[in-house]
Amino acid sequence: MQALLLTSVHQLRLVERPQLTAAPGEVVLTTKACGICRTDAVLWQQGHRDLVLPRVPGHEVCGYVADDPSRLYAVWPGDACGTCQLCRDGRENLCSSAQIIGFHRDGGFAEELLVPRRSLIELPATLHPDLATLAEPLACALGALDRVRLAAGDRTLVFGAGTLGMLLAFVAAERGAEVVLTDIDAGKLDRSGEFRRKFAIGTIEPGNIPPAGTFDIALNAASAPAILPAALESLKSGGRCCIFSGVRGDVEGLAPALLREVHYREIELSGSYGCIRRNMQAALQLLDTYADSLAFFIADRVSLTRVPDLLPLVLSGSRFRYVINF
Amino acid sequence: MQALLLTSVHQLRLVERPQLTAAPGEVVLTTKACGICRTDAVLWQQGHRDLVLPRVPGHEVCGYVADDPSRLYAVWPGDACGTCQLCRDGRENLCSSAQIIGFHRDGGFAEELLVPRRSLIELPATLHPDLATLAEPLACALGALDRVRLAAGDRTLVFGAGTLGMLLAFVAAERGAEVVLTDIDAGKLDRSGEFRRKFAIGTIEPGNIPPAGTFDIALNAASAPAILPAALESLKSGGRCCIFSGVRGDVEGLAPALLREVHYREIELSGSYGCIRRNMQAALQLLDTYADSLAFFIADRVSLTRVPDLLPLVLSGSRFRYVINF
Repeated sequence: MQALLLTSVHQLRLVERPQLTAAPGEVVLTTKACGICRTDAVLWQQGHRDLVLPRVPGHEVCGYVADDPSRLYAVWPGDACGTCQLCRDGRENLCSSAQIIGFHRDGGFAEELLVPRRSLIELPATLHPDLATLAEPLACALGALDRVRLAAGDRTLVFGAGTLGMLLAFVAAERGAEVVLTDIDAGKLDRSGEFRRKFAIGTIEPGNIPPAGTFDIALNAASAPAILPAALESLKSGGRCCIFSGVRGDVEGLAPALLREVHYREIELSGSYGCIRRNMQAALQLLDTYADSLAFFIADRVSLTRVPDLLPLVLSGSRFRYVINF
Repeated sequence: MQALLLTSVHQLRLVERPQLTAAPGEVVLTTKACGICRTDAVLWQQGHRDLVLPRVPGHEVCGYVADDPSRLYAVWPGDACGTCQLCRDGRENLCSSAQIIGFHRDGGFAEELLVPRRSLIELPATLHPDLATLAEPLACALGALDRVRLAAGDRTLVFGAGTLGMLLAFVAAERGAEVVLTDIDAGKLDRSGEFRRKFAIGTIEPGNIPPAGTFDIALNAASAPAILPAALESLKSGGRCCIFSGVRGDVEGLAPALLREVHYREIELSGSYGCIRRNMQAALQLLDTYADSLAFFIADRVSLTRVPDLLPLVLSGSRFRYVINF
């Protein structure tokens, strides 16, 4: 079977591999579709704290088991122990022995992959596999809402209008929050105007500072360190801020503002990393319900062979999701 | 009437002032007892972000109104607008127009003070006024438990064995948490051994690092910046950390660890500043219920004239609370 194997930074090559054999508790999943996440491009460009090489990337997978292509599954992209307190509390994304598909285990940039049986989540019958590849990023957005305990009516500010920022804005709006999106790139705000209007998502144009002390919730879907003090300042006292995207670059100067806002204004700072199975199940239902609208986030379908050439474009963030079709 | 007036750093003098006259909505409170908080000593030593000079300090007040010494009141040490969203949400400590007694308004280092009528909270009939001066710090400790949503069984680590650290440990233990206290000063841990044993509060001796990843909740009741990374590391993934004491000194280097723990381990970082009326009411009930035990935290009763000489001792933290008697 064919797979894209990442052997070191910038080295991602199509290889021929033997057919896979499942261990007890696992299944061989035949890949139908796999999304290309910006993180996959980051793995290729610079690596990642959770990456173990050599590795087949791909954690936004949809496929079927054995010889039954009529039943499709999305994949919770982890293999958690299932027995530790965090797993029992339903926070299996934090399980210390978790193995992440596409990072610690081989992922969906291949015709087949091994998946723990308990990580399979069956698709609603009417959901297309291409759209199902959005279940994982959408589930991550839902996980962030859990962290900030978002409720209907909460004034919510999202920084970053890429795929994840848009999905965050969507899930918040769908839950009845009053959502505003901002980005330093006017083009990124503009390209989803129609989607934003459909879900009454407002914008703050680049160069305009969010009004201080007016939001209940702020979330970052972009990695620039300067977003964090801006997010904290935009919040009402007692507001909640979620670090959804990892913060990259020079973060040294952030501590004084951060401690001041958290202590004296009782701003709650939370973080979100990955998602849990329950988020994936909810995401699949949302994708089924809002299929026509959410299809907007699939930029194109591509073949496995085209992926290496696409990664610089994925890194640029100029397009939404590419989906590999098999 | 006699009052201690702070006119600038290190200038706190006994002055004779005219009798006070209440404006509508206010009362003249005749002071029975006022606690000397370490923050009062900090005001005297170096000032404070919320201090407006000249000022009569004192925010841990108990007294009576007009000519009825049979009904005693504790004082929620603020004057909030009562109409903004934060006030209506019961977070009046965050009201942007709040005036804090002893900081923005004159406080209880005086025979009389002006108090908004709605800030009075009547004492349980059996509670001694000296003990009632602990209602404000105890209420601040209860406010911090609200921020971390402490539940019975939560493994809780408190940094700092001063009065506030002890009160935090007490309220957490009283709610059924499994509490451990640590301090860099073995003497401070030792002096409350009897109290700790009564409430099954464990300790980690100075020089011993709290075991990583084992606590649900961590709170600081000391200002050293190094406590924060230690607190975060002591927490299980998904744990909650409250910045209860302001962090003083060189905080610049804290950001990377803080962002990493919040993002990848989903540690929730909250802050606590002051308390709300509801916390004061609950604190008075606790003081009444545990009067014999909590009397341990009153180091001595003193007269108003002795206060200036006591402040260096208060700053040292070597004793628990001094209470001014009138």
